[in-house]
Amino acid sequence: MTKSKLHLIPLGGLGEIGKNMMAIECGDDIIIIDAGLMFPEEEMPGIDLVIPDISYLLERKDNIRGIIITHGHEDHIGALPYVLPQLEVPVYSTRLTNGLISVKLKERKALAGAKLKVIPPGESFTLGKFRIEFYPVCHSIPDAVGLIIHTSVGIIVHSGDFKIDYTPVDSKPTDLARLAQLGESGVLLLLADSTYAELPGYTPSERVVGETLDQVIATAPGRVIITTFSSLISRIQQVINSATKRQRRVAIVGRSMINTSRMALELGYLKDPEGVLAQPDELKNMPHNRIILITTGSQGEPTSALVRIANRAHRQVHILRGDTVVISATPIPGNEALVNRTIDTLLKQGANVVYDKLAQVHVHGHASQEELKLLLNLVKPRFFIPIHGEYRHLNLHAKLAQSVGMPQENIFVLEDGDILELNPHSGKKIGKVTSGNVYVDGLSVGDVGGIILRNRRMLSRDGIVVVIITVNKQTGKLINSPDIISRGFVDTRESKDMLDESCRLVARSLDHGGSHPAEWSLINDKVRDILNKFYYQQTKRRPMILPFIVKV
Amino acid sequence: MTKSKLHLIPLGGLGEIGKNMMAIECGDDIIIIDAGLMFPEEEMPGIDLVIPDISYLLERKDNIRGIIITHGHEDHIGALPYVLPQLEVPVYSTRLTNGLISVKLKERKALAGAKLKVIPPGESFTLGKFRIEFYPVCHSIPDAVGLIIHTSVGIIVHSGDFKIDYTPVDSKPTDLARLAQLGESGVLLLLADSTYAELPGYTPSERVVGETLDQVIATAPGRVIITTFSSLISRIQQVINSATKRQRRVAIVGRSMINTSRMALELGYLKDPEGVLAQPDELKNMPHNRIILITTGSQGEPTSALVRIANRAHRQVHILRGDTVVISATPIPGNEALVNRTIDTLLKQGANVVYDKLAQVHVHGHASQEELKLLLNLVKPRFFIPIHGEYRHLNLHAKLAQSVGMPQENIFVLEDGDILELNPHSGKKIGKVTSGNVYVDGLSVGDVGGIILRNRRMLSRDGIVVVIITVNKQTGKLINSPDIISRGFVDTRESKDMLDESCRLVARSLDHGGSHPAEWSLINDKVRDILNKFYYQQTKRRPMILPFIVKV
Repeated sequence: MTKSKLHLIPLGGLGEIGKNMMAIECGDDIIIIDAGLMFPEEEMPGIDLVIPDISYLLERKDNIRGIIITHGHEDHIGALPYVLPQLEVPVYSTRLTNGLISVKLKERKALAGAKLKVIPPGESFTLGKFRIEFYPVCHSIPDAVGLIIHTSVGIIVHSGDFKIDYTPVDSKPTDLARLAQLGESGVLLLLADSTYAELPGYTPSERVVGETLDQVIATAPGRVIITTFSSLISRIQQVINSATKRQRRVAIVGRSMINTSRMALELGYLKDPEGVLAQPDELKNMPHNRIILITTGSQGEPTSALVRIANRAHRQVHILRGDTVVISATPIPGNEALVNRTIDTLLKQGANVVYDKLAQVHVHGHASQEELKLLLNLVKPRFFIPIHGEYRHLNLHAKLAQSVGMPQENIFVLEDGDILELNPHSGKKIGKVTSGNVYVDGLSVGDVGGIILRNRRMLSRDGIVVVIITVNKQTGKLINSPDIISRGFVDTRESKDMLDESCRLVARSLDHGGSHPAEWSLINDKVRDILNKFYYQQTKRRPMILPFIVKV
Repeated sequence: MTKSKLHLIPLGGLGEIGKNMMAIECGDDIIIIDAGLMFPEEEMPGIDLVIPDISYLLERKDNIRGIIITHGHEDHIGALPYVLPQLEVPVYSTRLTNGLISVKLKERKALAGAKLKVIPPGESFTLGKFRIEFYPVCHSIPDAVGLIIHTSVGIIVHSGDFKIDYTPVDSKPTDLARLAQLGESGVLLLLADSTYAELPGYTPSERVVGETLDQVIATAPGRVIITTFSSLISRIQQVINSATKRQRRVAIVGRSMINTSRMALELGYLKDPEGVLAQPDELKNMPHNRIILITTGSQGEPTSALVRIANRAHRQVHILRGDTVVISATPIPGNEALVNRTIDTLLKQGANVVYDKLAQVHVHGHASQEELKLLLNLVKPRFFIPIHGEYRHLNLHAKLAQSVGMPQENIFVLEDGDILELNPHSGKKIGKVTSGNVYVDGLSVGDVGGIILRNRRMLSRDGIVVVIITVNKQTGKLINSPDIISRGFVDTRESKDMLDESCRLVARSLDHGGSHPAEWSLINDKVRDILNKFYYQQTKRRPMILPFIVKV
């Protein structure tokens, strides 16, 4: 391809939550933006996580100049441990993001040989025919950036995950002036975060949360236990600030949060000038109204510190009457039931629980409709691609763009794998590359596919029945009566008669003086049919039936 | 027990969503209020539905005078087909509720012998020492009632599921005057709906939805497809009203909705004076902007009409560009992902989709905080029990009651199975009866328990490996090498080497010159240990391992 046009290829992050990844091609140069993961959905039982299919990139490995990461959340960095060893290219990010990437790569033993480059917001670097500049944005993690990408076709602005907050905790608001300046000089394409395109109005500032938390901390009669995302460093900062003001000390409970906050302290993203942070042990003999604990578990994750505390299964911390628990997060879709159950368990033990429905103890990190319109207005792009979100979010964001005056033909609602070809004057979808979900399950990446998942779903519904049929190798005659083992199907004691009867049914159907070895392959189907019918009639359930012939 | 005190025993509906049931005892008389079901949660794979444990009632069968049903929703009537044949007592309800109960009992072949009594709102009847009066309430189904129960100890008011709507579609607002009158004369106990105790303010009137729907219908360029709960008869009425006004005709698609609306028409709860209702076939040749379809599927249920339409798997209806689909419902917690996916699928096919986040196309049927306070204020009960809701809702409702002046010691937050003993002056929990979840799976009620569910969950995570070991009955020596079959664990072709290796491991560990028959029981444990360790090391997965010894 010539350098007078661009190819934009989303490989993740369109049409589903998480797993953000996009490739941009110009001539022989490819850059990749973000390499995120997605957490498995209900119909993916046993799967640990989901990463993007990078077959297209692997086929063009020599053209890839680097991976650019906008911020340190899992849905933007989580696939790096899996894709980086295959792609072997440098990774560019800001300092905190770089720290989080290092931790992640180390955990998965993929750090050795990784080329990680730190770029401060405001600075730029060159990858092949692309010159990339980081501009600071507000999001629910510090050091998040958007990208200004200078190409021979024109300037691309990529919003990253962002919201507009004039009073952020770390005092680094989104750089609107730079965007306005670009907008005046002409922007070819805007790619912008659609996650909250459904929400009218403006996303409230982090400051609102700080005030609520401070009120809760100031008036709580006993200990305050605050749970939030471990990467929400600004929230931890707000708690430290309030603790300083209210003469409380703060201990962090939970491995991932301890690791993240330690790194944030070292790199200067978290500040504790008065030294209120303490080890949990140091708080043991303090009065309860001097104690704050910060923990993980805001999503009700069964192994998190808060859930173990709620279930009285935590080694160090138990709920005491008079505790105030603050859930400083909203449930990610799909986690509602887990979070609700955690709240109920805490309440039953006498804790006071403050959560999003009762007070503004959380604001999210994405722009709402008015902010999205503001961005479109400042950047004034010729073309627009809504990114990050499920299909209806992209669709709605496209409509928003139309509502502020963009012509429909300049807006592209893409799906993962689409190739959008863009020249200075027009754009069109010219094809589709391999894309989709790669499942990570235990050590394996990609070997669990549709059949295994279908089997797991089937097993989970009505269990399994294994039928072992022992026949004489020569005569084909049954030796012993068939054996039946089941799991997850029926209560084997209560249903003993029914299972015995099914055994006799199988024996009767096979015991007609022996079958020829050539017919053995038919036996499986026959047994499966007989049992399927019998069990459904008896129980209205359809267990997986697995006949096995032992020939002796 | 004497008739100077009451026992209140919740058997469902406290601490979880759905499955409402409560027993009230006075002397030798027991009445039961509601007999609902609950839909299974994620950790109950394969379960069809969940009903309350009625062991306590079965032990006192002779004392039970009747079951009183407040309205026709599944979480209030759904357990009747299972419990009624065991309890054999009459069921009291209003006319529409009675119709819905008949349909339900018939479906499950439990109608024969059922004694169903219709009681109009405003009238009263006597069951043993209880005199029960129905008073009309507004809820998301017509003919819903609350109960006024006259006892020797005092008057009990049971709110049923309710909200306060001054402009309901069926023009029968909640009878506040009757409640105020009771409040003046003295009420012993209020039991009230806590489902939306988290919501500040007032629940909007159904009228708001009618206006939004009419706007959508008036301005839609093509067909309008509206999905809602099949029992939301007032919503169907609103669509018929708007269709009449906008010169459109209406067809109902989906078996359950056709059945319910046919019955509602027959009983006069649904009115179609201009005859706009039609069979789907009659609309075939009409212009698209004259057509409205009403379907089930508002919860994204995979077998519902709307989802089949969205997936192009419906026999009669396909999505056409220009269709407007209205999701006139909010997702029940846990169904969000299914609903979102349905919206996305519809959008991708070119439909315009209007859902709760974009316009007020649904209001729910439960009272918000201000309505709950109003009820407490009118009824002025001495004692209060929050019912219907998860634990945090009950807790919050109790706090609301305190906030309007009720003393804390007169408020009882119960859990299912608690016995609350109440005399005119005080109440206390005096014990606990058997209560809990009974699982219905296919034909069986109650035989699926914890072990089966644990096995299903385990099977769904990492699948199963069956190991068949054939030994000589006499010598204990291995005949053949062991056979391994797996499902849902690994890709059996790609992982053939690993599975073969595991087979050899088992063979090696057993083949030491034969084992004594007495040791065979140990073989299972040994094989399980070896394979567990080997598979985890190779894959970081833990399939269920099922060794089986064939002795020949």
